[in-house]
Amino acid sequence: MMNEDVLRGYRGRLREKLGSEKIGIGDLIKVEYGEKSYEGILMPRLESADEFHIVIKLKTGYNVGIAFEEDMKIVRLKEAKKPTFKPPPLPESSSDLPEISIISTGGTIASRVDYATGGVHAAISSRDLLSIVPELSEIAKVEGDILFSVFSENIEPKDWSMMAKRVADKIKSGFEGIVITHGTDTMGYSAAALSFALSSLPVPVIFVGSQRSSDRPSSDAASNLIAAVSAAAQAPFAEVVLAMHETSSDDSIVFHRGTKVRKCHTSSRYAFQSVNSKPLARFRDRRIEMIEKNFRHRGGRELILRDKFNERVALLKFHPGFNPEIIDWAVDEGYKGIILEGTGLGHVSSKCYKSIERAIHEGLIICMTSQCIWGRINMNVYSTGRELINLGVTPLEDMLTETAFVKLTWALSQSNSREEALKLMATNLAGEFSHRTLYTWK
Amino acid sequence: MMNEDVLRGYRGRLREKLGSEKIGIGDLIKVEYGEKSYEGILMPRLESADEFHIVIKLKTGYNVGIAFEEDMKIVRLKEAKKPTFKPPPLPESSSDLPEISIISTGGTIASRVDYATGGVHAAISSRDLLSIVPELSEIAKVEGDILFSVFSENIEPKDWSMMAKRVADKIKSGFEGIVITHGTDTMGYSAAALSFALSSLPVPVIFVGSQRSSDRPSSDAASNLIAAVSAAAQAPFAEVVLAMHETSSDDSIVFHRGTKVRKCHTSSRYAFQSVNSKPLARFRDRRIEMIEKNFRHRGGRELILRDKFNERVALLKFHPGFNPEIIDWAVDEGYKGIILEGTGLGHVSSKCYKSIERAIHEGLIICMTSQCIWGRINMNVYSTGRELINLGVTPLEDMLTETAFVKLTWALSQSNSREEALKLMATNLAGEFSHRTLYTWK
Repeated sequence: MMNEDVLRGYRGRLREKLGSEKIGIGDLIKVEYGEKSYEGILMPRLESADEFHIVIKLKTGYNVGIAFEEDMKIVRLKEAKKPTFKPPPLPESSSDLPEISIISTGGTIASRVDYATGGVHAAISSRDLLSIVPELSEIAKVEGDILFSVFSENIEPKDWSMMAKRVADKIKSGFEGIVITHGTDTMGYSAAALSFALSSLPVPVIFVGSQRSSDRPSSDAASNLIAAVSAAAQAPFAEVVLAMHETSSDDSIVFHRGTKVRKCHTSSRYAFQSVNSKPLARFRDRRIEMIEKNFRHRGGRELILRDKFNERVALLKFHPGFNPEIIDWAVDEGYKGIILEGTGLGHVSSKCYKSIERAIHEGLIICMTSQCIWGRINMNVYSTGRELINLGVTPLEDMLTETAFVKLTWALSQSNSREEALKLMATNLAGEFSHRTLYTWK
Repeated sequence: MMNEDVLRGYRGRLREKLGSEKIGIGDLIKVEYGEKSYEGILMPRLESADEFHIVIKLKTGYNVGIAFEEDMKIVRLKEAKKPTFKPPPLPESSSDLPEISIISTGGTIASRVDYATGGVHAAISSRDLLSIVPELSEIAKVEGDILFSVFSENIEPKDWSMMAKRVADKIKSGFEGIVITHGTDTMGYSAAALSFALSSLPVPVIFVGSQRSSDRPSSDAASNLIAAVSAAAQAPFAEVVLAMHETSSDDSIVFHRGTKVRKCHTSSRYAFQSVNSKPLARFRDRRIEMIEKNFRHRGGRELILRDKFNERVALLKFHPGFNPEIIDWAVDEGYKGIILEGTGLGHVSSKCYKSIERAIHEGLIICMTSQCIWGRINMNVYSTGRELINLGVTPLEDMLTETAFVKLTWALSQSNSREEALKLMATNLAGEFSHRTLYTWK
């Protein structure tokens, strides 16, 4: 937070007024004019915002914008709390605790400081996480490492490569489990990406995020982090999973397979759901219990790192009135593959056939998933499905659209052969296909 | 089925052989060669299929393709069952039963005949439905009307207009309730479309489909149809709803609001789910029970028909590696609006800002929904959301992506004014916004 403008986003007369009162962002202030009076934390403003509003966060958690007037009374009631992190306690833990690396990539779970001052901009280091959750040092010898710090909506395939490489480095250095803190928006995509990039994994790799930042009473950051570090240290499985709340209670955290999980709620603590499969395991009463009986066990095997992703893949969601020219556009732009998120059992309108035929003729791989999300596609039931198969469309069984997209970016970077990539797409590499579809959704 | 090629899709030597045995599609046949023997129904083949395979549907319901060999023994065991529909019984029902119109648009619920012969191609009339489900005549005086007969993946915005107009005609002629049979793939989109096109509705409009065709023992066609006709005849509500199974049991059928429902499973009988709201009502023990207490009651008011939809709307699902040039493409193609299906609380990567800014500058409406599906977007929590709001993106609260797409095609056709369309998008017209988000998803 050093060298940061203490009145970020405020300009003109309003800025002068605030400055003259020695007010800075994060201070508790009181604004009075006429009969009205507001108390709250001064919030930063966007650079692009107008200069006529003062924005404060009320005690209720809501922000209000108040139009500035010259005769307003604005006073500081309390100075902004300075971040009070102290370095984590030196591990007094006995030296036989497993060594775990926490790789930080950003997101709400690492957003405490900035939230305290209003917006959610910055990140805190994994070492800081230790001072928020000191229990971690009783579970493992924890090393913290900031890989980058971004909101996960800005994460791109090249970032998946960086994560995969960093994990591989850590495993080579002897860590017995890896935790990756991540923003929840695209955490499912990243977990799928590392599921394919890291094969023959000898230790668990646990993605973890939080839906509520750690300075809110309802935060899920600590409980998720404790579960993630416990799994990294003790779990019998060596797979890429995602640790989040099972229900709204802090009592149980589940580990979803990286290829079978998606964010299914914008804000709830149990936003992540395993789709067409059960979660792999659960953390309850400080113990890991397996739910799925078939899993890859920890072992001394050699990790295989295949960290390339081909970004020339499009994900197109079909809908009535869908314009097949988007497919032509992708072909013309040099795309190598398309995931069509079709309707029902795997359908798009017959108007798309010509563009699909051309795309496949030009060497693209076109795969089909369903926007229903749950269930399995079956392109043999109706003539639409059969025609699409005949055109060369690849049906992806019960694979999630998001996982299918990630897998195709990965498969296309493994070789220049279309046939090789198609073979990879059809092979169950990391649990992305289920043998039968489970109805866990209701 | 008259004048249809009895060996549709079979060519060359195989066709000659089948013809010489007087075998036609739908016949039960036996194929023997070497040690092997198969029994099943001869299936039609696609025109584009090869000429070397004979395809039969086994008793198990699975299709197998058998490579044709000259010395094969192929015999007919039983001739194809001819469709045995008899015209529905003349309504002996007392003349005080309500008059209901069943408008057929196609889909599995109307696919019995063709399924019997193998593929699922044709449609049956609503009158035929009466002969499958004779109970209907005890519930209402039913009139059947085939509007068109298509798989619902081929339905387009112009078909929504046709449906809306037909419903309006029927209501003008005095029908006391309308049922629309529809393929399930895009039934949710059509139900949303008619929710906006038909306002001030005096009677219920019930969409109904089936996930299993009516000649399968597990078919949901009859139970769904009985519930739909019952609601059209007796329900107290006058809204556009969608009638499907509540669970896997035939005992309860629920009526989902047309703006709040999506198909969430590829094959289960309870594939449709109300999202961020409860279903409006339930049909159980032959009675309609209301679940939602706030609804539009039946009444003598005058229907308002606004049946235009502007097809120049794109639905773009965001993902890591999303190429913002797709937004530019839509602008260049003359699109008038874009629904961005963002991540989490309503985010896309900052790489998209420039293209979004340009699109809005060119007069497009850009709205945000969440690919999480459940929950409400909130673009005030993180800086990404605030920046997007600043660029002019319209957040759509807890509206479904599919409903948002349909509503924007409709709103843009109501006037040439961007401001008018934006006002419509922000107004709760047909229950598309919920006041608070219900956690009915788990």
